[in-house]
Amino acid sequence: MQPINKTHLKRFQGKYENRGRILLKCADRPGIVAAVSKFLFGHNANIIESSQYSSDPEGGTFFLRIEFECPDLAGKLSSMNTAFKPIGSDFQMEWKIVQVTDLKKTAIFVSKEPHCLLELLWAWQSGDIMADLSLVLSNHEDCREIVESLGIPFHYIPAAKEIRKEAEARQLDLLKEYGIELIILARYMQILTEEFVAANPNRIINIHHSFLPAFIGARPYERAYQRGVKLIGATSHYVTNELDEGPIIEQDIERVSHHDHVDELKRIGRSIERSVLARAVKWHLEDRILVDGNKTVVFS
Amino acid sequence: MQPINKTHLKRFQGKYENRGRILLKCADRPGIVAAVSKFLFGHNANIIESSQYSSDPEGGTFFLRIEFECPDLAGKLSSMNTAFKPIGSDFQMEWKIVQVTDLKKTAIFVSKEPHCLLELLWAWQSGDIMADLSLVLSNHEDCREIVESLGIPFHYIPAAKEIRKEAEARQLDLLKEYGIELIILARYMQILTEEFVAANPNRIINIHHSFLPAFIGARPYERAYQRGVKLIGATSHYVTNELDEGPIIEQDIERVSHHDHVDELKRIGRSIERSVLARAVKWHLEDRILVDGNKTVVFS
Amino acid sequence: MQPINKTHLKRFQGKYENRGRILLKCADRPGIVAAVSKFLFGHNANIIESSQYSSDPEGGTFFLRIEFECPDLAGKLSSMNTAFKPIGSDFQMEWKIVQVTDLKKTAIFVSKEPHCLLELLWAWQSGDIMADLSLVLSNHEDCREIVESLGIPFHYIPAAKEIRKEAEARQLDLLKEYGIELIILARYMQILTEEFVAANPNRIINIHHSFLPAFIGARPYERAYQRGVKLIGATSHYVTNELDEGPIIEQDIERVSHHDHVDELKRIGRSIERSVLARAVKWHLEDRILVDGNKTVVFS
Amino acid sequence: MQPINKTHLKRFQGKYENRGRILLKCADRPGIVAAVSKFLFGHNANIIESSQYSSDPEGGTFFLRIEFECPDLAGKLSSMNTAFKPIGSDFQMEWKIVQVTDLKKTAIFVSKEPHCLLELLWAWQSGDIMADLSLVLSNHEDCREIVESLGIPFHYIPAAKEIRKEAEARQLDLLKEYGIELIILARYMQILTEEFVAANPNRIINIHHSFLPAFIGARPYERAYQRGVKLIGATSHYVTNELDEGPIIEQDIERVSHHDHVDELKRIGRSIERSVLARAVKWHLEDRILVDGNKTVVFS
Repeated sequence: MQPINKTHLKRFQGKYENRGRILLKCADRPGIVAAVSKFLFGHNANIIESSQYSSDPEGGTFFLRIEFECPDLAGKLSSMNTAFKPIGSDFQMEWKIVQVTDLKKTAIFVSKEPHCLLELLWAWQSGDIMADLSLVLSNHEDCREIVESLGIPFHYIPAAKEIRKEAEARQLDLLKEYGIELIILARYMQILTEEFVAANPNRIINIHHSFLPAFIGARPYERAYQRGVKLIGATSHYVTNELDEGPIIEQDIERVSHHDHVDELKRIGRSIERSVLARAVKWHLEDRILVDGNKTVVFS
Repeated sequence: MQPINKTHLKRFQGKYENRGRILLKCADRPGIVAAVSKFLFGHNANIIESSQYSSDPEGGTFFLRIEFECPDLAGKLSSMNTAFKPIGSDFQMEWKIVQVTDLKKTAIFVSKEPHCLLELLWAWQSGDIMADLSLVLSNHEDCREIVESLGIPFHYIPAAKEIRKEAEARQLDLLKEYGIELIILARYMQILTEEFVAANPNRIINIHHSFLPAFIGARPYERAYQRGVKLIGATSHYVTNELDEGPIIEQDIERVSHHDHVDELKRIGRSIERSVLARAVKWHLEDRILVDGNKTVVFS
Repeated sequence: MQPINKTHLKRFQGKYENRGRILLKCADRPGIVAAVSKFLFGHNANIIESSQYSSDPEGGTFFLRIEFECPDLAGKLSSMNTAFKPIGSDFQMEWKIVQVTDLKKTAIFVSKEPHCLLELLWAWQSGDIMADLSLVLSNHEDCREIVESLGIPFHYIPAAKEIRKEAEARQLDLLKEYGIELIILARYMQILTEEFVAANPNRIINIHHSFLPAFIGARPYERAYQRGVKLIGATSHYVTNELDEGPIIEQDIERVSHHDHVDELKRIGRSIERSVLARAVKWHLEDRILVDGNKTVVFS
Repeated sequence: MQPINKTHLKRFQGKYENRGRILLKCADRPGIVAAVSKFLFGHNANIIESSQYSSDPEGGTFFLRIEFECPDLAGKLSSMNTAFKPIGSDFQMEWKIVQVTDLKKTAIFVSKEPHCLLELLWAWQSGDIMADLSLVLSNHEDCREIVESLGIPFHYIPAAKEIRKEAEARQLDLLKEYGIELIILARYMQILTEEFVAANPNRIINIHHSFLPAFIGARPYERAYQRGVKLIGATSHYVTNELDEGPIIEQDIERVSHHDHVDELKRIGRSIERSVLARAVKWHLEDRILVDGNKTVVFS
């Protein structure tokens, strides 16, 4: 494996240099799409992909994601942001307009089990996931070699219940230093403090090794085995301060049978965890996920 | 089973009396969404669901489907149609604006095997599929009892290679008499003539009992067994004059093993056929399918 | 729909007249398969299908299911049972030898929602499920017509919390009268008393409308919607006296999205419930399920 | 990534030192299981897992795979082989008795695309696949670094139509030198000569990037896109001298939509290819696949 093929990145930047995204959320009422599409047309932008959702047409929340092509996007982005402000105010929107090539600064947290980390590295390296993969943080040294071989900084920060505060202080310093926008918990087996979570709302993606809300908490495969389920699953979700209760992004399952003991469930589960986490991360990086209370709207 | 619960229909008509759909297709260029959403806003319509697709942002075909709520839709539909004409002309669109409660007149063709027919009847009866189920046509008498017990006209028209023309003449008369807009071939085992097919473009939905393009033609389960495949499938598609080559709407598969001989494949296959056909029909009835050459755009 | 095609039953009885099954369970130790296969060979029986499982090769429980062909099985069954007794004693087995054509006397319990009942009737009628479908019991009159049109006795027994005991007394009388061996709860919305359940160990199959152990108890679709899950499921299990905690037989799921509100989840769920229950019932009728504590061994 | 954790191998060898397998194939007739199980019991072996299949109980081919525990297996294996000979002769069996810890010498062929190779390396390294991974052969240098970093020999042998014979001669020399028993084509994009294939019957596993028999031959994703299929798949099969027509081992599919252009199909497809090939290889290494003409019996 070698550092991300510069060709992937170059090709991406060439292909999408004029591709922008507008994301917004506001109280639903007539005229939103008309206002936004008129705005885009006025800036000579062609809508490439558009997804919308209203939690309730009568008085719910409206969500919109549009990808557009716009000549000389880099030169116009600042003026577009200025020009959109009145619309945003008028509809009381939360909104942002971004360039697709402006990749998100991302940190991966990992402990000993490397399968989720490896999947992400592989997807990143092959151009399937476009992120600015800034650093990997771990409470173990096991994954250093593979991470550094790809030219990605690896930081070892010991962590345990007793030294949680100190560990997190060091982690937060690094996240700040690198300007991290997304934290991926790729089977990071430490609990995060409320402060850490609160400081990163909807910016921490975790992979839980069960089909939530079944088997919340520890040792889900052991409990799935005890219960005799016929399917096992994995769930990717944003981390909130209620254990395994954050907004679910993606889930998947695999069939198992009475033959499959705990070790076998773990083996099968690793494969589900890998793909579920990779899909969730891809969608987040492409701004396809909007959070609606404790749920997600996923424009996949 | 009893005739469709009037409650379902009443509830549907009440819930959606002001729900409309606009469907269109034209050469892609900037400004389409702006024009359409301005038009809807001008008619006081709120967009509930919007899906779009461009086969190629640079010079491809643009497809749009919007569902909207509009007070007093029934009273305004005609004026909306008039008012949209200039937009349609300007962009050279194929377009239509319809009321959701204006159900499609539908005919089901069936031979001896009743599983697909029964699934459709059940979905219709339980309100999962909203159609004006006008008649069932068959070249066998087997299904008469169940169809008539639901208050649906059943017409027996013998059919075979030698009498194809006469049979189709009678069928076409009935389709005309009932004003049929959609024909569902629910395991109808007769070949249709080119004339019949040409007279009903993108209005005949068939279920083929294989994962097309594997096993085009006759006896797909026998051939799947011979080949030793590990998955079998079914494919729902619009009928064109090239055998099993029409635009694919939906496909699904089920896992099989060396234990499953031809009879077992057929049994498993019936279950896939039922659900694949029912999904395709539901999408067609909800105007979710737009045909793009020999492919479909499905806004599911 | 017409009463079960006598052809199906005749063909089945003809094809399998000499087909037997041996089922057993005992402490694992060397020599079991040798003893059983020697026994079968000694009776001139050819093993057609054999499945075995040991919960733990060192001191676990051993489960065996064999299907065999044996000339003149009907004539020999009694002597085979006698001849097997010493082997059964020697290994301290729970065991039985049965004829495949000896269909299980089965009762279906249903309330108002007919989808699971209809699926079972359809599978039974088309020969996919071979059972002696003796009667349908319901606390509503809704399904009487369809059941009686197939020539199956339908018994209406009002049921509610206050009259549970009386209702169950009448139900138990009927079950006894018909010699029922299997009870299927096809969305029967009444709770059963501990006595009723205790009287029918591993003989009551229920369909729960969630992916257990998620959403145990009432209103699972509403709770799935609240939680924002991305998959919904159904679970078929044997009924025990702990709510939704009996041995799981089969589970399946379907993908949903933020677009799917509670009604849509219910619609999608009905389809999963139908197929999951039908598979569980088929396996039970074919003696493919052996109960291992609170789990099932399914030789599918 | 580091060379396979010796712990995995050690743990495996410790856990399975007395685990054996017997595999056989013969004309079906009564008494086979009785003879084999008596034999095993006579050698004090306990059957752990047993799978059998008869292509046709009346005159078909019978397949049997048994895993057993036998004290001091290593010491007894030779005498067991001798003792089984009369049984093998009596029933005219093809048979073998092996030790589970006797890992198969395996070679992987790869071209430029590394995803299947990486999956296999990862599965091997994490102990999910137990093989003696002897060497990797490639007609490109791209994968050398990752392979060698795991301590596996990497051989670069240029290959092209014009130099096929010479290339294969060098390959065959290496396969012989290493005593290779299994060849995995992990997206190896060169055609093999008839001689090469004939020299390795049922010992070459390929991954084809379509749901065979759809899209046999080159550029399947392009053709799937042209046809507008709604599912894409991958197929793992043994290589024979008829292109993409060898016995199918495993297949799987993933859902796609009109949004997915060729590049996207390839991306999704890579994920299916990886898992389908890994499953097929795992089953082969565990002797779970028996070839029945142009089909496989898979005791998974």
